[in-house]
Amino acid sequence: MSDDLEIEFFFDIASPYSYLASTRIDRLEAETGLAARWRPFLLGGVFKATGNSPPAQVRPKARYMLEDLKRWADHYGVDFEMPAKFPINSLSTQRALVAAGELEAETLPAFAEHLYRAYWTDGRDVSEPDTIAEVADAVSLPADEIVERLDAPDIKETLRSITDEAVDRGAFGAPTFFVGDEMFWGNDRLDFLCEAADAKTGG
Amino acid sequence: MSDDLEIEFFFDIASPYSYLASTRIDRLEAETGLAARWRPFLLGGVFKATGNSPPAQVRPKARYMLEDLKRWADHYGVDFEMPAKFPINSLSTQRALVAAGELEAETLPAFAEHLYRAYWTDGRDVSEPDTIAEVADAVSLPADEIVERLDAPDIKETLRSITDEAVDRGAFGAPTFFVGDEMFWGNDRLDFLCEAADAKTGG
Repeated sequence: MSDDLEIEFFFDIASPYSYLASTRIDRLEAETGLAARWRPFLLGGVFKATGNSPPAQVRPKARYMLEDLKRWADHYGVDFEMPAKFPINSLSTQRALVAAGELEAETLPAFAEHLYRAYWTDGRDVSEPDTIAEVADAVSLPADEIVERLDAPDIKETLRSITDEAVDRGAFGAPTFFVGDEMFWGNDRLDFLCEAADAKTGG
Repeated sequence: MSDDLEIEFFFDIASPYSYLASTRIDRLEAETGLAARWRPFLLGGVFKATGNSPPAQVRPKARYMLEDLKRWADHYGVDFEMPAKFPINSLSTQRALVAAGELEAETLPAFAEHLYRAYWTDGRDVSEPDTIAEVADAVSLPADEIVERLDAPDIKETLRSITDEAVDRGAFGAPTFFVGDEMFWGNDRLDFLCEAADAKTGG
C-alpha cells in the first residue's frame, strides 16, 4: 500500500549517535518492511543554519555523552571507541559519500558503514583523503575517482542541497530520519520510527 | 544487599521531559525494587552553572520537541498539553517543593505530581503563589505556611544547595537521575536506569 514510502537516514560520519544508528539500519528495514535511503549531509552546515550547537560543547554534557555512547554500544552489542581526533571536519568525508552515491548508489551504505567503523572503532582520521581512498578501495569503489571529485563543484553543490533540504524539512541535528513527512531525531527514537512506519504501512 | 541504594530524581516543574518522567516513578520503583527520592532543583541554575541552554531556544528543535513530547505522552498513555505560558520561571515553584519536603517529606511526590499536572495538562501558571497554594491545599499540605516560606533564607539556601550538588555530580539538564554514582539524563534513559539498578542490586 505504500510502495514509495522509505526510511530516509540523514547522517554525518562525524556524529557518534549517527554511527550507532547506522548499525541498526538493516534491522529497521527488516522490522518496518521499508527500504532505507542513506543521505549524507553536513552536520556542521545544519548547526550553522539552525543556530544549534554540538552537544559536546557543554563540558559536563560531553562527559556524560561518553558514558551514554558506551551504554548504547553495549546495548547494541557493537564496538565503540572515542577517536583520538574528535571532532573532525567531515566536509571531505561527506563529499566522498555524495560522490560515491552518484557513482554507485548501491555501494553507498557499505562505504558509509566502513567509514563509520574506521572512525568510531578504529580511530582512523576519516577526514583525510588518503584514509577515504583506502576505505573506498575496501568496498571496491573507484578510490582515485572519488578523491578527485572531493572539490568538484557539482559534488559540493549536491552536499549543500541535501543539507539545505534536511534543514528545510526541520532537521537541527544528527541522525535525522524521515518516514514520509514525520521526522525523528536521534538514535534513541528508532522505536518511535518503527511505530510510525507500522501505522503508515498498516504493518 | 543494597538497602541504602535509591533512585534520585532531580526535577523541575518547568521541564516537560521531567513531567513525563515523573509519571513513571512508581513503575521505576516497582521494576527496580528501589525507592525513589524526589529532589527539586532549579533547572535555570543548572543551565547557568554549566553553560547549557534550554533545548527550545533553537527554533526547529522547539517545533520537533512538541511532536516528540506528544509521542511520549501517547506512548505512556498520559495527558500532555503545551501550556499557554511557557517557559515559566519556576523559582517559587521549586522553593515551594523544598518547603513542602521539609514539612512533610512523604507528601512531596504527590505535591510534585499535582504541580506537574496543573502545569502540563491543565495549563495553570504554577509559578504564581496563589496557584501553588491551591495545589498544596489539594494534597493537604499547609498552603499558607508554604507560601510564607517562599522567601525564607533557609529554603532559598536549600534549593541552591540541591542544585549545586546536582551540578557537582555532573548534571547539566533535567530530568537527571542517579542510581548510586551512575547518572542518567532524560526521560528517554529510564530503560538504561533500570538495567543499571538491576546490575547493582543483582535483580
